Amino acid sequence: MENKNIPSRNDLQSKWNALQQKMQENNIPACLISSNVNLYYLTGTIFGGYFYCTQSGDPICFIKRNSPVRKDIPCISIRKPEDIPSILKEKGYEIPIRLMLEGDQLSYNEFIRLQTVFGSTEITANATSILRDLRKIKTAWEIDQFRYSAKRHIEVYGLIPSCYQSGISDIEFQANIERLARIHGSIGIFRGFGPNMEIHMGSVLSGDNAEAPSPYDFALGGEGLHPAAPIGANGTILKQGTSVMVDIAGNYTAYITDMTRTYSIGKLPEQAYYAHKISGIIQDEIIKISKPGISCADLYNLALQIVADAKLSEYFMGTKLQAKFIGHGVGIEINELPVLTVRSKDILQENMTFAIEPKFVLPEIGAVGNENTFLVTSDGLEQLTLFPEDIIELN
Amino acid sequence: MENKNIPSRNDLQSKWNALQQKMQENNIPACLISSNVNLYYLTGTIFGGYFYCTQSGDPICFIKRNSPVRKDIPCISIRKPEDIPSILKEKGYEIPIRLMLEGDQLSYNEFIRLQTVFGSTEITANATSILRDLRKIKTAWEIDQFRYSAKRHIEVYGLIPSCYQSGISDIEFQANIERLARIHGSIGIFRGFGPNMEIHMGSVLSGDNAEAPSPYDFALGGEGLHPAAPIGANGTILKQGTSVMVDIAGNYTAYITDMTRTYSIGKLPEQAYYAHKISGIIQDEIIKISKPGISCADLYNLALQIVADAKLSEYFMGTKLQAKFIGHGVGIEINELPVLTVRSKDILQENMTFAIEPKFVLPEIGAVGNENTFLVTSDGLEQLTLFPEDIIELN
Repeated sequence: MENKNIPSRNDLQSKWNALQQKMQENNIPACLISSNVNLYYLTGTIFGGYFYCTQSGDPICFIKRNSPVRKDIPCISIRKPEDIPSILKEKGYEIPIRLMLEGDQLSYNEFIRLQTVFGSTEITANATSILRDLRKIKTAWEIDQFRYSAKRHIEVYGLIPSCYQSGISDIEFQANIERLARIHGSIGIFRGFGPNMEIHMGSVLSGDNAEAPSPYDFALGGEGLHPAAPIGANGTILKQGTSVMVDIAGNYTAYITDMTRTYSIGKLPEQAYYAHKISGIIQDEIIKISKPGISCADLYNLALQIVADAKLSEYFMGTKLQAKFIGHGVGIEINELPVLTVRSKDILQENMTFAIEPKFVLPEIGAVGNENTFLVTSDGLEQLTLFPEDIIELN
Repeated sequence: MENKNIPSRNDLQSKWNALQQKMQENNIPACLISSNVNLYYLTGTIFGGYFYCTQSGDPICFIKRNSPVRKDIPCISIRKPEDIPSILKEKGYEIPIRLMLEGDQLSYNEFIRLQTVFGSTEITANATSILRDLRKIKTAWEIDQFRYSAKRHIEVYGLIPSCYQSGISDIEFQANIERLARIHGSIGIFRGFGPNMEIHMGSVLSGDNAEAPSPYDFALGGEGLHPAAPIGANGTILKQGTSVMVDIAGNYTAYITDMTRTYSIGKLPEQAYYAHKISGIIQDEIIKISKPGISCADLYNLALQIVADAKLSEYFMGTKLQAKFIGHGVGIEINELPVLTVRSKDILQENMTFAIEPKFVLPEIGAVGNENTFLVTSDGLEQLTLFPEDIIELN
């Protein structure tokens, strides 16, 4: 394991301080965190147990299974959450009058169990939203993690043409790419926020399968291999004159870069190159105006205006079902804040990371367009996923 | 898509009838289901929305996104769950006095939202446990799905030796196996019950990495490639005299077969063949006594007795951290009921499907043992994952 995969104590301290400040602002004396995503954010490790933190001082980790946490965070073994209050009392901590739990990540029954554990303590359910809000601004170490993911992601995308052979199906092509990703260090598992984000490593869409609607909250759909996983590749044979859109996640660290490129089998009809060029123009125009202070809703509206001017609205972000966003924050989950959508209240801030994915689905051809991950700097955007953006012909 | 991937109306009807009977027994007039796992169980599809069912008559699906459900189930489009009560009234349905929700699958905030939607209706949180209890007895169609998964699973395991090359790492070996699985139709995504089941397709463990504890609730651990995914392969080079345990899931339909086989690089020390033989004896002895009516706790205790007699207790189900079960139900999730553990109250019943996985971890060698998936028949067990069980030497 390379040492840089582990955040410094200072990095964690800055996250704890930010959390403690939010807790002070919201008059919440203590929080108890147990989702894998937030445990990783706050400790750099995943363990069975709870991260407990008050408005000042060091946090405590209560550990249910024999999984090692860092030596520089106080850890206490527990068998079950019911042990926590008596341990707090023993150690001289007060039982908080109010406690914040992860209301969007804990199941109802887990939440009620913890509520019972803390007896007369008032329980609030806003830890998920407070931590999502904190997580949208990345630390220097987190940005380094994105840079590492992006580097591996780019290496793998450079090898994608070697995954093609004439006559293969979308899923064979995808399986070859997945293998390369794993050999280059992809951790495999794919974290998303909410119950509608089931997907396996990402998506490869070819031809008319790009039009198939999916119940999941991804930008595009696809029928999938089976009704039990209705998303992405469906066994379509890659054929002349159709596109193949590759959107395989860059989860080479906990921090996911998101990148899509479009490939073609032979040449595509002229409309495809035109729509692909418009996708590039949308990205360019968003880059031009983006900087701290710009509203994400404005970026979305700008994209829609360019699409309307290009007379491509009916193909934008799908045909039968059209996604109502053109980008999203990325981090430990693939769908963090901000969201680039019409109703977004998010404003760009320095050290946010987000993906822009203006995509078109063209009947009888397939999907075209690119997706890239950007870092918001003090005066604009830095593209983390630097890789050629033209449609790449496969032979 | 092969037609047999779609359950018949009769199959679904039998599940609805069983659910309605449970609702009558528990005095619950209506239920509202929205987890992907239970939507698939009850409709054979995954969609954004809700399955609503009262104690008699046809269910209704409320559909949030443009995702097609079967034509033979009544479907109503909604924008949000707040639309449901007025639609029920319009259609002449009563608003139920009591409604059952999935308390272990809905987040706390989703649960509270639905509670608010239904105003004065009393809400119970037991739909998860009632459906888990129903799901443990498989229908004829579900058993066919397991048979299909097992067939593909066996084909892929037959090709595993071709994934090996001298000097490769555990993750390269695993990536080659994952590619074969995907090409043979693995749907990729891996469903488990509860928040501690994050894994990518399964596990490949070699040498001392098999001893590394993991925070997840799987039988064995492994350090993983990164602190963000602390489970399984960690980049260990496969070396002479060590074992490689392959436990890659058989999710070729929604119904997962679970199978583990042990491979070796060259010959292993004699202790490894001895422990592997004991694993086989545990399986044989469990098969001998298993039939409807036998308690799962007895099966667990039988295994532990054989292990103690063989003087292998300190290596059973891990070393530094030892799993406290030797088998588990399989289905749409990898960890369904019954559980083969000391405290289990489960009794074997006809048409249950479960995996038995007696495994040993031997320091400096690695993990040995097998895992197989069984169907409980009227008078015993039928092994669904029929594949040679000796340690297979890789060259």
